[in-house]
Amino acid sequence: MAKGLPTREEDYSQWYNEIVSRAGLAQHSAVRGCMVIKPYGYAIWEKMQAQLDKMFKATGHENAYFPLFVPKSLFEAEEKNAEGFAKECAVVTHYRLKTDPNNKGKLIVDETAKLEEELVVRPTSEAIIWSTYKGWIQSYRDLPILVNQWANVVRWEMRTRLFLRTAEFLWQEGHTAHATKEEALTETKTMVEVYAKFAEEWMAMPVIQGIKSESERFAGAEDTYCIEAMMQDGKALQAGTSHFLGQNFAKAFDVKFATKEGTKEYVWATSWGVSTRLMGALIMTHSDDKGLVLPPKLAPYEVVMIPIYKGDDQKEAVVARLKEIKTELENQGISVKLDDRDTHKPGWKFAEYELKGVPIRIAMGMRDVEAGNLELARRDTLEKKIYEQKDIANKVKHLLENIQLNLHQRAVDFREEKSQKADSYAEFKKILEKKGGFIYAHWDGTAETEDLIQKETKATIRCLPFTDKKEEGVCMVTGKPSKQRVIFAKAY
Amino acid sequence: MAKGLPTREEDYSQWYNEIVSRAGLAQHSAVRGCMVIKPYGYAIWEKMQAQLDKMFKATGHENAYFPLFVPKSLFEAEEKNAEGFAKECAVVTHYRLKTDPNNKGKLIVDETAKLEEELVVRPTSEAIIWSTYKGWIQSYRDLPILVNQWANVVRWEMRTRLFLRTAEFLWQEGHTAHATKEEALTETKTMVEVYAKFAEEWMAMPVIQGIKSESERFAGAEDTYCIEAMMQDGKALQAGTSHFLGQNFAKAFDVKFATKEGTKEYVWATSWGVSTRLMGALIMTHSDDKGLVLPPKLAPYEVVMIPIYKGDDQKEAVVARLKEIKTELENQGISVKLDDRDTHKPGWKFAEYELKGVPIRIAMGMRDVEAGNLELARRDTLEKKIYEQKDIANKVKHLLENIQLNLHQRAVDFREEKSQKADSYAEFKKILEKKGGFIYAHWDGTAETEDLIQKETKATIRCLPFTDKKEEGVCMVTGKPSKQRVIFAKAY
Repeated sequence: MAKGLPTREEDYSQWYNEIVSRAGLAQHSAVRGCMVIKPYGYAIWEKMQAQLDKMFKATGHENAYFPLFVPKSLFEAEEKNAEGFAKECAVVTHYRLKTDPNNKGKLIVDETAKLEEELVVRPTSEAIIWSTYKGWIQSYRDLPILVNQWANVVRWEMRTRLFLRTAEFLWQEGHTAHATKEEALTETKTMVEVYAKFAEEWMAMPVIQGIKSESERFAGAEDTYCIEAMMQDGKALQAGTSHFLGQNFAKAFDVKFATKEGTKEYVWATSWGVSTRLMGALIMTHSDDKGLVLPPKLAPYEVVMIPIYKGDDQKEAVVARLKEIKTELENQGISVKLDDRDTHKPGWKFAEYELKGVPIRIAMGMRDVEAGNLELARRDTLEKKIYEQKDIANKVKHLLENIQLNLHQRAVDFREEKSQKADSYAEFKKILEKKGGFIYAHWDGTAETEDLIQKETKATIRCLPFTDKKEEGVCMVTGKPSKQRVIFAKAY
Repeated sequence: MAKGLPTREEDYSQWYNEIVSRAGLAQHSAVRGCMVIKPYGYAIWEKMQAQLDKMFKATGHENAYFPLFVPKSLFEAEEKNAEGFAKECAVVTHYRLKTDPNNKGKLIVDETAKLEEELVVRPTSEAIIWSTYKGWIQSYRDLPILVNQWANVVRWEMRTRLFLRTAEFLWQEGHTAHATKEEALTETKTMVEVYAKFAEEWMAMPVIQGIKSESERFAGAEDTYCIEAMMQDGKALQAGTSHFLGQNFAKAFDVKFATKEGTKEYVWATSWGVSTRLMGALIMTHSDDKGLVLPPKLAPYEVVMIPIYKGDDQKEAVVARLKEIKTELENQGISVKLDDRDTHKPGWKFAEYELKGVPIRIAMGMRDVEAGNLELARRDTLEKKIYEQKDIANKVKHLLENIQLNLHQRAVDFREEKSQKADSYAEFKKILEKKGGFIYAHWDGTAETEDLIQKETKATIRCLPFTDKKEEGVCMVTGKPSKQRVIFAKAY
């Protein structure tokens, strides 16, 4: 075990922080609440971006870019949205600094350069985008607009945690415009499904798709669909949301289109986003007490090679053989890092790449070269095994597929084990206290009951899961009728 | 010619604006000086990004992400850098809005949420990055650091033009740290060469590499290398810069490393960047009076297909054949858009894709289907020709390569024709007035003379070109000795 890395059991929160830091993923910066994403962390984010971008394009979306700043008058146009974000807005008020006349070499805000209208640093871009769409949309021929943006956003959070909640974060935000309600609803559903597919197949993270209760809805939305994942401490993490915005933004910005029939109607909207928060979800879903565990599909490199040798002659022979094998693997599309540095011992390297979650480690010494073998260790199970070098690329390829599936299955099993039904409020509280996890319970659909439960237990409704077999019942708190079980959990 | 598009001759500046707007590249936004990059424009930028990113990684760089905000105290640490950017900084002073008590539904800045220390929206990231590198660098083993960031930056410009000069723009900024001066200088040179290669081979835009005079240097740099391109109005455009920062930032942030010998030394630095300004350069280098002209390597799609038909039967037959050919082309790695919309006539489509600069247009009617032919038009020369469909993918592939080279050659020829030597100040002024372009002249190396020339003629020194054959002479203004000719031009 890496020296001093706390176990999940001991201190889950500190375990997470230490992994983020020691695996070189991110760190706090000199700016309150803002993080630096370090190269190894950013390489994972780049892999996420590349795959998501491909999926967005495959579903007909194009990328564009809208301004970082939102003039206050636009920001406040959609009242609910504005109200929802007003309390956490970074505001630009001036556009110039000047030398402090009393303190040479220091700068102060130049009060003569005050903006006539303050600019909000975007916490989300509906306002600036819908003020733009007004100019893009005249007739039904201009619809749908299927646009996505990769950007940074700022929400002034008081309690921040690397990746999970930061004042600035990176994300993508899709903003679509449609002629009909049905089409917008279909888009909202399509995108939450894209997120679910990405989470399951690339992140190896099982998620539940559902719909948010009114109090958890995005400010300005008619409905928010989401994917919810379970972390290893039994808490839920909202990993992506897709919003049906109705005609709220079209009305706020007066965006109408001429229908085929010649009438004028307000446009229907959706927006949807995932952020660097997914990095936090990825880390907490798979990692163990030895460090980060990465699914092969998102690992910066899938295989690390470590030569073991005494003296230059041995080094040359071992590294030469590893390079040949590296080429074989790369020809199969496998990404490989060969660490042949002399500055660090093999033992140090073993620990380092274990901490960094590299899916497969290949070690080779002089005897292995002679025998045509190599030692292969998989990060998910920590199993080590001697393999013949023959046909190694295919073996590694299959093993990587296997690791990807195994991580997913392990996370599914964990979630199932931590998912329970509760039929009374007493039972609900007991489960929550003893075991945590997802609790499927009946709720009367009111914000009052939801608030009460949250105040008394800290659990929130994560979603009303999409399901074919809705089971009716009565609210565990009020006894009023309920149409389906909803998922409660403590959440990030 | 697109209706109302002014010619370059009539009004170069308006011609540029109209192309940016009509080809769907970008538009002004509701935020002063900030642009919206529209999907077609963004698709070109994505192609630029993808290629540059590949080249950065091939030269050993990794990506990371640093905060958008820079606390004022860090910003002012490197005095020259701070002084250079202070006058154009957007400043965040508050972190909350509240409902206006006198005007329900309106928001005002919450004065109780004033930041203790103002935050500058990054105009460039040396300060925040070097304050971070301090924690990353202890010994020579931690060097070099070769990091790049893709980000948005803000410089509060008073006179803005889409892509060329905007308050917010997108860019990449490399920030490297080295143990020796020589290594940092090599890095500075390597990156300007990467930029030159990208400009020449991908943008088909010839550039001259050189070194900036002191007054044109980046604030805080010891030396700035650059690539300079010539636009079709004879004006120069600085397309990329690579800075040797010496130990200035290491000293400002006290970043020292332990050498192999155990001494402590300040770290050497470089930074280098290109931005969405390249979009402006690309547009102005190749486009003509009919609209945008794109080099195939950066075109969102290299080929557009337009079916010509009467009635549904013909449409079906023509589109079916075009789809087959589309697949053939795509199998060769060629990107193709088939526009089979009924809502627009072929003539409209021809004009539209000409305006959008698509390198090759394929048109096909019923007779072509029967004869096994198609009509192919190239955007660069506007030539149209009938081709046999047989082996069309190879023909198109070669043609695209040819277009790429032709655009480059045309731009080289144009630049050469507009490049002249001037041996007296009178001759210099005459060339500048009558012809413009690049003027190679001798200069005494002083800022005074440079200022004088700029004040009298508006021409600036674009660079001291890297050259093997330096020709000595005397300054055209003062008669003092000069070691090499430098390039003067009016510039964007």
